[in-house]
Amino acid sequence: MLTVIVQVHVVEEGIQAFREATVKNARASRKEPGIARFDVVQRTDDPARFVLIEVYRNAGAPGLHKQTAHYQTWRDAVAPLMASPRVSHQFEDVD
Amino acid sequence: MLTVIVQVHVVEEGIQAFREATVKNARASRKEPGIARFDVVQRTDDPARFVLIEVYRNAGAPGLHKQTAHYQTWRDAVAPLMASPRVSHQFEDVD
Repeated sequence: MLTVIVQVHVVEEGIQAFREATVKNARASRKEPGIARFDVVQRTDDPARFVLIEVYRNAGAPGLHKQTAHYQTWRDAVAPLMASPRVSHQFEDVD
Repeated sequence: MLTVIVQVHVVEEGIQAFREATVKNARASRKEPGIARFDVVQRTDDPARFVLIEVYRNAGAPGLHKQTAHYQTWRDAVAPLMASPRVSHQFEDVD
């Protein structure tokens, strides 16, 4: 398993549109065979900040995810909503 | 459900000790009735950076977690291993 954590900061007027686009992407992503979990959370004290916690079953799965129509639709839909570039890092399980 | 994401940066010579203390804490934490998930991951390209993804069943559960012996033992064990102060934020589920 590998985990990709994506930190997102959207413009205030983009919060609702980001939520809607991201829920669609999350639901479709969870049907990918290479994806074990795809969680979307929103910061309690700053609702313009979100984190995506994406858990992949193998090293090839993130690349396959980026080839899907739902990912590409999401990427294009949220591009104008970003307050700053997304920060994404890959992690291995410790426990 | 609420999620607490803790970002940790340890000194290089503290990586192994941090892993060991954190695995112990994670395993005990998962037995708490208020904790649904307690995941520990380590950054692939920088093994001195860890993230704890803690999913609580209700608003009171994080406070109860901090009262446990396993949390307090962990907190004291890892204090000298930090390269910088931990960053912790609370999130609500979007989906």
